Amino acid sequence: MGKEKVAIIGSGNWGSAIAKLAGNNVKKHNDVFDDSKVPIWVFEEEYEGRKLTEIINTDHENKKYLPDVKLPENVVAIPDLLETVKDATALVFVMPHQFLGKCLDQLEGKVNKDAKAITLIKGVGVDGADIHVFADVIQDRLGVSCSALSGANIANEVATDRFSETTIGYRTEEEGKMWQKLFQTANFKVQLIDDVAGVSLCGALKNIVAVAAGFIDGLEYGNNSKAAIMRIGLLEMKHFCQEFFKDVKEESFLQESAGVADVITSCLGGRNTRVAKAFVTGNKSFDELEKEMLNGQKLQGIHTAKDVHVFLKARDRLGAYPLFDKVYHISWEGLPVAKLTEGL
Amino acid sequence: MGKEKVAIIGSGNWGSAIAKLAGNNVKKHNDVFDDSKVPIWVFEEEYEGRKLTEIINTDHENKKYLPDVKLPENVVAIPDLLETVKDATALVFVMPHQFLGKCLDQLEGKVNKDAKAITLIKGVGVDGADIHVFADVIQDRLGVSCSALSGANIANEVATDRFSETTIGYRTEEEGKMWQKLFQTANFKVQLIDDVAGVSLCGALKNIVAVAAGFIDGLEYGNNSKAAIMRIGLLEMKHFCQEFFKDVKEESFLQESAGVADVITSCLGGRNTRVAKAFVTGNKSFDELEKEMLNGQKLQGIHTAKDVHVFLKARDRLGAYPLFDKVYHISWEGLPVAKLTEGL
Repeated sequence: MGKEKVAIIGSGNWGSAIAKLAGNNVKKHNDVFDDSKVPIWVFEEEYEGRKLTEIINTDHENKKYLPDVKLPENVVAIPDLLETVKDATALVFVMPHQFLGKCLDQLEGKVNKDAKAITLIKGVGVDGADIHVFADVIQDRLGVSCSALSGANIANEVATDRFSETTIGYRTEEEGKMWQKLFQTANFKVQLIDDVAGVSLCGALKNIVAVAAGFIDGLEYGNNSKAAIMRIGLLEMKHFCQEFFKDVKEESFLQESAGVADVITSCLGGRNTRVAKAFVTGNKSFDELEKEMLNGQKLQGIHTAKDVHVFLKARDRLGAYPLFDKVYHISWEGLPVAKLTEGL
Repeated sequence: MGKEKVAIIGSGNWGSAIAKLAGNNVKKHNDVFDDSKVPIWVFEEEYEGRKLTEIINTDHENKKYLPDVKLPENVVAIPDLLETVKDATALVFVMPHQFLGKCLDQLEGKVNKDAKAITLIKGVGVDGADIHVFADVIQDRLGVSCSALSGANIANEVATDRFSETTIGYRTEEEGKMWQKLFQTANFKVQLIDDVAGVSLCGALKNIVAVAAGFIDGLEYGNNSKAAIMRIGLLEMKHFCQEFFKDVKEESFLQESAGVADVITSCLGGRNTRVAKAFVTGNKSFDELEKEMLNGQKLQGIHTAKDVHVFLKARDRLGAYPLFDKVYHISWEGLPVAKLTEGL
């Protein structure tokens, strides 16, 4: 079997951080990987008067999205998506979820049939009574096996080599081990678990819990209350996934970085928690706060709460997940935030 | 069967908070409990020129340990231990663990033989290769069935009715339900589990994890690293207890307030985390920090880490719990704190 040729699809903060690890690791494991080049697809834009691809390829730094972190020289920025994935056998999807559809439109029928993929995209797709994780979407559209990586992973901390962990939910153990080789370092520990759906869902649902934690911060109820909300949220995540996805593993939620640790990181200081706190203390709408605090980007937790609400309604299961429910009603229906803990 | 007569043994911050709940609940459930009086044993001392028992019985407030919280009038402070427990059928132990031995010396042979007990005391007893939880000690010494309560419970937050949760590990389901009736309120949710040892051990071992989290805070590694340490610590707690105590339940650690939620609360802002952070940033010994920051009280996490180290050595299991090990070596043997994450 030939060596794996990696391609990274997406070059934001997280994509650039992961490209750094991958660029170094293909050299370390050049028995498994082609180490000459790790192409990274860059949505071309100008930054300080220069093209972003040129900055990356000349200065070896993504100055816009991951400043002050040197990328290995074998990480090569390419503005054309199809050129990026040409010959690639190991496709790493790492982009905001709203761009995935367009990207797959371009890629469909164009990737290596025996390629493997992994998605680092957070989120979950809901369409009425249907719910799906992006690993399945990629797998179905491209006809390639797709694993998922998710964990308590603040991109800058990973990129600057501070101790952290992540979880890969794999399709086959062999693929899991290949992905682990591509990403693991002495300070970035990769655990493997046979649960693509569980790992994927954690990354989406934890944002709802993080919003609830931010409400508690805003109410100034204290760490005791906050820990209670995180515990209840974690269990709702687990129960929700066990109800609607077959074969998810309890460990993904309760023991893995993708579950319990990511809930903790997100609730300690993530954007969902910060903005939800401001919602309580600042007397502004989420619309206003998204503009002010997130540069117009969407606050994932409240949108996931809405998706989950729509889904549970379509499945006639409203009321079964009281914390998710409360986050929806407070965020979208004007329920007073002090009602959050009632009846949990 | 007659009504349960409650006695509370201990009147610090947590004892006073729990006395407030119990005093109210015996009235609410006066079909089960004698609601005329909830005696609380007070180690007599002077506070602002008055006896503490007099303050509690006149002002209905423990001004020294839980100021600004009104206690129900049926909570009656008694300076004599044996008088406190006279006729009691439901004994609540809630005192610093170092006073338990003396207390049991006095009580042995003097309590109702069909009484039930519950301990809210944090900690674990280690003596060479022997390890024991206080619920077992109380049960053995007094010949009464003893359950355990532990959770993410900051006394002031519970006393001021902010939303929180706790876990009771019970001996029999019937006893569990009785204790739940004594403590549960609309904002203080009590979960029951058939695991006295697991619930007890959580309250002791989480302090080691909280010290490790404080080291990470001091190192400024960020929330990502901190969440990783908490996850690893939680799993070491679980594995340690599964190795040395038969029948502990995984849920106590991973799903209950006593486990995951208490780890979170403690690592967010508890004293172990705060002092351990100061150890890293302030260049002072733990001896000095205990004097300066804890009024001379011991920092439980580092002492529990030492106890666990002694125990593991006696059992020839050094090295099996790397995080516990690192906390011991950093706290007591001068290992540089930056080594904390190495090899985890």
